[in-house]
Amino acid sequence: MSAAITAVCAAAEAAFDLYRTQPLAARAAYLERIADEIMALGDDLIVTAMAETHLPRARLEGERGRTCGQLRLFAGVVRAGRFLDLRHDPALPDRQPLPRPDLRLRNIPLGPVAVFGASNFPLAFSVAGGDTASALAAGCPVVAKAHPAHPQTSRLVADAVARAVSGCGLPAGVFALVEGEGTAPGTALVTNPHIKAVGFTGSRAGGLALAELARTRPEPIPFYGELSAVNPVLLLPSALSARGTALGAGFAASLTLGAGQFCTNPGLVLAIEGEGLERFIASARAALAGASPQTMLTPGIAAAYERGVAARAAHGALETLAHFAGGALFGVSAAVFAADPHLTEEIFGPASLLVRCADPAELRAVIERLEGQLTTTLHMDEPDHPLARALLPLLERKAGRILANGWPTGVEVAHAMVHGGPFPATTDSRTTSVGAKAIERFLRPVCYQDLSAALLPDEFTQNLPCLHDGRVS
Amino acid sequence: MSAAITAVCAAAEAAFDLYRTQPLAARAAYLERIADEIMALGDDLIVTAMAETHLPRARLEGERGRTCGQLRLFAGVVRAGRFLDLRHDPALPDRQPLPRPDLRLRNIPLGPVAVFGASNFPLAFSVAGGDTASALAAGCPVVAKAHPAHPQTSRLVADAVARAVSGCGLPAGVFALVEGEGTAPGTALVTNPHIKAVGFTGSRAGGLALAELARTRPEPIPFYGELSAVNPVLLLPSALSARGTALGAGFAASLTLGAGQFCTNPGLVLAIEGEGLERFIASARAALAGASPQTMLTPGIAAAYERGVAARAAHGALETLAHFAGGALFGVSAAVFAADPHLTEEIFGPASLLVRCADPAELRAVIERLEGQLTTTLHMDEPDHPLARALLPLLERKAGRILANGWPTGVEVAHAMVHGGPFPATTDSRTTSVGAKAIERFLRPVCYQDLSAALLPDEFTQNLPCLHDGRVS
Repeated sequence: MSAAITAVCAAAEAAFDLYRTQPLAARAAYLERIADEIMALGDDLIVTAMAETHLPRARLEGERGRTCGQLRLFAGVVRAGRFLDLRHDPALPDRQPLPRPDLRLRNIPLGPVAVFGASNFPLAFSVAGGDTASALAAGCPVVAKAHPAHPQTSRLVADAVARAVSGCGLPAGVFALVEGEGTAPGTALVTNPHIKAVGFTGSRAGGLALAELARTRPEPIPFYGELSAVNPVLLLPSALSARGTALGAGFAASLTLGAGQFCTNPGLVLAIEGEGLERFIASARAALAGASPQTMLTPGIAAAYERGVAARAAHGALETLAHFAGGALFGVSAAVFAADPHLTEEIFGPASLLVRCADPAELRAVIERLEGQLTTTLHMDEPDHPLARALLPLLERKAGRILANGWPTGVEVAHAMVHGGPFPATTDSRTTSVGAKAIERFLRPVCYQDLSAALLPDEFTQNLPCLHDGRVS
Repeated sequence: MSAAITAVCAAAEAAFDLYRTQPLAARAAYLERIADEIMALGDDLIVTAMAETHLPRARLEGERGRTCGQLRLFAGVVRAGRFLDLRHDPALPDRQPLPRPDLRLRNIPLGPVAVFGASNFPLAFSVAGGDTASALAAGCPVVAKAHPAHPQTSRLVADAVARAVSGCGLPAGVFALVEGEGTAPGTALVTNPHIKAVGFTGSRAGGLALAELARTRPEPIPFYGELSAVNPVLLLPSALSARGTALGAGFAASLTLGAGQFCTNPGLVLAIEGEGLERFIASARAALAGASPQTMLTPGIAAAYERGVAARAAHGALETLAHFAGGALFGVSAAVFAADPHLTEEIFGPASLLVRCADPAELRAVIERLEGQLTTTLHMDEPDHPLARALLPLLERKAGRILANGWPTGVEVAHAMVHGGPFPATTDSRTTSVGAKAIERFLRPVCYQDLSAALLPDEFTQNLPCLHDGRVS
């Protein structure tokens, strides 16, 4: 295994210069070809993924669409060329007291990237998911580590990517799949000297262990880990009062979507006590009672979920507001929540915790103590706006995405998306793992001073967007 | 000391929301006011810095100009608003199979930033230097740690910044200076929970120790350390042959500038053997023999330089090509250079090492083994272009800036500048500490989903540059 990983990393390094110097149009066409090859797998891919993940057909068909849409979005990002951040400050030979040299800047790719597929999105966050698509778009070869929960799905997709590589006449080292259980393959991959960055979606413990390896290598490398979050949902008083029942039903639907196995699952609800909140609870309870039990991704995930829920049910200071096969909701006072740091931990699956706050000041105090999150959601009506306005600066510092009157499950692949957030939601709050900005994770700037036109990189002569003396050309 | 640091960090945090929500025009005016207040210090500042650093008047006046120019550049960057990276993907309510929500993105500042002033640039990389200017431009309060080598200069500048704070009606916590010797103040600063990023210019040992603290805090934070480099200069055959003598004189001038105390000092020369190289050596030797000895920044730096030069002079496998009070040049074969990793270490001061390569293949092999660098320089004529073209992809991976036919000392403050590079030149190759892009180090993206216009941040309504559906508006 270790020898195999050494070999694919060396091949990725060997392919790097050839891949990164392909014209942007060729790189974009390659991304689109991957999408075409994935679609050409047909129903085989869906049936295989259904068998391995227990996720329903509609969900997987949607995820396939998202995966291919993501590849096509990045093809567009590559063609547009803004990710290169081209800049040109022309020479000022007569400037006093000193002349200015000619300065040009472009972003270049970091080098081969290791991608760790997630268990919960066998397509969109796996072998040809967002990390792979954005790294390939940046010009980085990818070595993908298959998640052991869906090996056959991973192989099908890897074969499709490899067909795109050969179909586009690229060197085979541009993409490779590695497999294996336990920590050895991941360790070998992250510590391989040819690997220059890592994308990871998974558990906090696994992510932090790999992040530590990435940081303590002889040459430390960027590690982009999307780890865990409870995605607080704030129910503000007027909204609760006006539509507590509807909010309870909407919440239960988001909580149970995909058996609660979303990074953005609403695992924490913060609300101010009142009659509206009781209607929310009654409605959520009824919806959870009627929710169908779903098979989770793996027996290990199901067992961890059962343990987590059992611990909350047995917790003397929690109310069990709903505890059904399809989902669970517990309640707690703000004081107890503040005193027990375990209550902020994610239970992966359809379980959530409602923190009852006496007033806006207590709500704010609860938010202040929260760790970093992927998302936070505000349910509010116009009379809630002053409170929302006061909370927004705090919420911005806690999460990468702030939603109004929606539910955090469902992450649009778009230019303005941020799927990221302060530690420990991710290991690098400056980035996103979904959306066009994800490409920025795999780039670094290089400045060329007084380099003659004959030697300048092609991009500078292709009419791509460029800042001239700081102004858009 | 520790209590004082706790207090200024708490004040920085308390000032953060008010500072970051100032209109961009007010933030820009504040940066310009700092420049004005520094100029208003008049000759006091220059005389004080001369006494503390032994740097000559002209150099310090130039550095003051650079420092104020840097603040004004960032004022322009703030007004232009591109650093916010505003994006808007409007709602598509009728999209099938699912509607798209309204998504907006902007960058927000990370929070209070700690800045460690450098010994070698008492103004431009110190209290109100590039790290401070870019952090304040991003909207982050700054706690600056004075370098103990120039305390009075640091206090004068800090007073100027504080006058700008009060003159602009900003809360005092926006900026603070802390002082102290030893590691305790730096440790207290980097581990303070209110500090959300660190800018550092200094030694490799000091930088790596602080970087480790930044990474192992309960909440890890970005650490931007600019550590050390030997800035390889490549003398290609035709250039050497045509103008070896002129290159030797130019090299010696760059090497001895400011007593060799520049981050971009040319501490390593790589050249292919030949008659042109011998003329380069003779010319460099003559120039170094005539170079005036200069007083270094501190007795400790001078002693370390003397130790480093003495060790090279005593190294049995090195040639002493020049060893004078004003500067030193040693020579070594590529084989010896490859075998002794200590020879790649920086000697801070006017000393350099020439690696004699037999041919282009040996030159390439030497470059392949180099660590990350801030700069690399090519001296070449047109017949050298094929060799340069072959080396450029390799050089790009080794350095943040590639210069043609110039000298690396002198770092223009501009939009297209990169003063950064792969580890260990810096701790984060994705960034620069000089130039407009330095602001990006202190920002993170936040997405607002379906947030009503009444609650959106002001920037979205101010006609600032914005990507609409991925297209420039």
